Amino acid sequence: MSDHGKHPDFIVQQAMPFNGEPPAARLIEHEVTPLSLFFARNHAPFPTVEPGAYRLRAQGQVERPLSLSLDELYALPKVEIAATLQCAGNRRTDLIAHQPVPGEVPWQAQAIGNARWGGVRLGALLEAAGVRPGDAHVAFLGLDQVEKHGAPFGFGGSVPLAAALHGEVLLAYEMNGQPLTAAHGFPLRAVAPGRIGARSVKWLREITVQAAPSDNYYQAKAYRLFPPDVNAGNVDWPKGLMLDELSVNSAICTPAEGDRVPAGPLRLAGYAMAGGGRLVERVDASADGGTSWLQAELSPATRHAWRLWHAQIDLPTGNHELVVRAWDAAANTQPERVAPLWNFKGYMNNAWHRVRVRAT
Amino acid sequence: MSDHGKHPDFIVQQAMPFNGEPPAARLIEHEVTPLSLFFARNHAPFPTVEPGAYRLRAQGQVERPLSLSLDELYALPKVEIAATLQCAGNRRTDLIAHQPVPGEVPWQAQAIGNARWGGVRLGALLEAAGVRPGDAHVAFLGLDQVEKHGAPFGFGGSVPLAAALHGEVLLAYEMNGQPLTAAHGFPLRAVAPGRIGARSVKWLREITVQAAPSDNYYQAKAYRLFPPDVNAGNVDWPKGLMLDELSVNSAICTPAEGDRVPAGPLRLAGYAMAGGGRLVERVDASADGGTSWLQAELSPATRHAWRLWHAQIDLPTGNHELVVRAWDAAANTQPERVAPLWNFKGYMNNAWHRVRVRAT
Repeated sequence: MSDHGKHPDFIVQQAMPFNGEPPAARLIEHEVTPLSLFFARNHAPFPTVEPGAYRLRAQGQVERPLSLSLDELYALPKVEIAATLQCAGNRRTDLIAHQPVPGEVPWQAQAIGNARWGGVRLGALLEAAGVRPGDAHVAFLGLDQVEKHGAPFGFGGSVPLAAALHGEVLLAYEMNGQPLTAAHGFPLRAVAPGRIGARSVKWLREITVQAAPSDNYYQAKAYRLFPPDVNAGNVDWPKGLMLDELSVNSAICTPAEGDRVPAGPLRLAGYAMAGGGRLVERVDASADGGTSWLQAELSPATRHAWRLWHAQIDLPTGNHELVVRAWDAAANTQPERVAPLWNFKGYMNNAWHRVRVRAT
Repeated sequence: MSDHGKHPDFIVQQAMPFNGEPPAARLIEHEVTPLSLFFARNHAPFPTVEPGAYRLRAQGQVERPLSLSLDELYALPKVEIAATLQCAGNRRTDLIAHQPVPGEVPWQAQAIGNARWGGVRLGALLEAAGVRPGDAHVAFLGLDQVEKHGAPFGFGGSVPLAAALHGEVLLAYEMNGQPLTAAHGFPLRAVAPGRIGARSVKWLREITVQAAPSDNYYQAKAYRLFPPDVNAGNVDWPKGLMLDELSVNSAICTPAEGDRVPAGPLRLAGYAMAGGGRLVERVDASADGGTSWLQAELSPATRHAWRLWHAQIDLPTGNHELVVRAWDAAANTQPERVAPLWNFKGYMNNAWHRVRVRAT
């Protein structure tokens, strides 16, 4: 099944490794994103896992290292959480429009999705392994084999141990009530709500409690944020901001860029998301490029899930720039322009989202 | 003592109630702000407290309401934390320059200070009172008497119970190793790190565990954030974003606006602060109005404390706009312009801080 269960309208950015996102208007048809519309972000072919032979290892700074079969994992207390995952590269196309970002997937604004994840609390598993609370990190390593620099390696990344113990980090084997598909990490993946998608490592091979954050390429180098003047030639990797929690973001999913719309009342709709468990508290929409704003209506707030929003505006005949910006519970809001956010890896574009339409 | 122990250069914004801030250049001479330079934000005359007669009451959703004398409070386990307090109105002058904010203190960028606070963990006190963890709030009420609408009332505000139990909210009786002064809340104040200063209620009279956030004027109405088109005439208070954690912010404290500086190397310096325990991860300085940036050097990171920063730039002869912006651990950064942030109460201005100088 080469479409990996995706909708016929799914926008395949890359066939191999498989990367794609749904059309914007379809994305917000559902508060809980169906599998067929859930973005897929991969760095290597999906590993083939024989369920009977699978083992998850938990090791490192734990008293009793574990090696668990799938049946043993399924037998542990199951929890289900709603959590929105968002790729750090979401909305990269707007950065690219300002200045190219070579070698990275040109995500539109749909590298985001909200699912119900079922599985085992990472904290519970670590407690069973005899972890001691403290200033440590939990590193995930995947079974995939990324071919990038020399020998193939598994995708990896870590979360702070405190987040695992007190937060809602999950070892998920279900997505929307169904077993994970290969494209989404079968048989087991991390789901680290409120953090960049890269921390929700798929096809989990092992979990290591360690003193420092992951030294995997995808945390030690990639997924760091640099000022606009830094590039692949002059980068000093450790100086970059190691991405972790998501910043506040939002997008207009309908209408679309360049649409012709009837003059008169128009419904704008989209999503808004904040990181670190902070709620989206306010979404402002503008029909005049951000000079004046009105407060949008929001779907109910759930920790770690996006809020869908809509606003009714009245458009006279002519060209209009529609804008959206969100505010989180810490009164952080989105920056205005893309240019000052541009970075050579193309991460974390949360500039005001703009859509130009013509009302006739 | 009418100067309340403040430095001769302290900028008194209002004598009664006493409101003032230090000069910018002096503020950043110390990682820990001396009392003499610590901003003071008050809404009423300081209450006169007879130490022997003082009682703190803890009540509401607790099994064993408490009434504690100062000696009983002093006898509880003492902790000391470094925490930066920042008024939600800090940097209001920049908002006012865009559009007036009537009736509010015109704070420059120094309504912020970093102190060592000594006292009792709020969580420990609530546990002693038999609180049950849950989705509740801890409301503080002060002994001061604000004359604003009808009968005088004490200043109040609340923090989520979870923040009190898991976080570092303090009932402080010491500031920088000395007993609190009247201007800073003698004999006991709340210190709610990472949140707007208004939640660090002074001259504590009582603490109430309750289902909803504080209904005090200063939380139910004031200290909410509205879009720019809302004003005192059309405001619908409950629609506003109830301020809570601080957003990421920074300022240039030296040089000052309008300074003439020698052409050549120039040292910029200031502070950066993030809310909710998030660390400031990066500070960018610009000498060309934000077109190009360089990463500033930062003082060590401590949870809940600001980071002082400095950067060396080279200025040719002429006029220059110096800019600073900070990034927190969740990759939130400061918005570019003041205008889209303007709100009629003048809160939470965290636009890029700009200082214009002439190099000769």
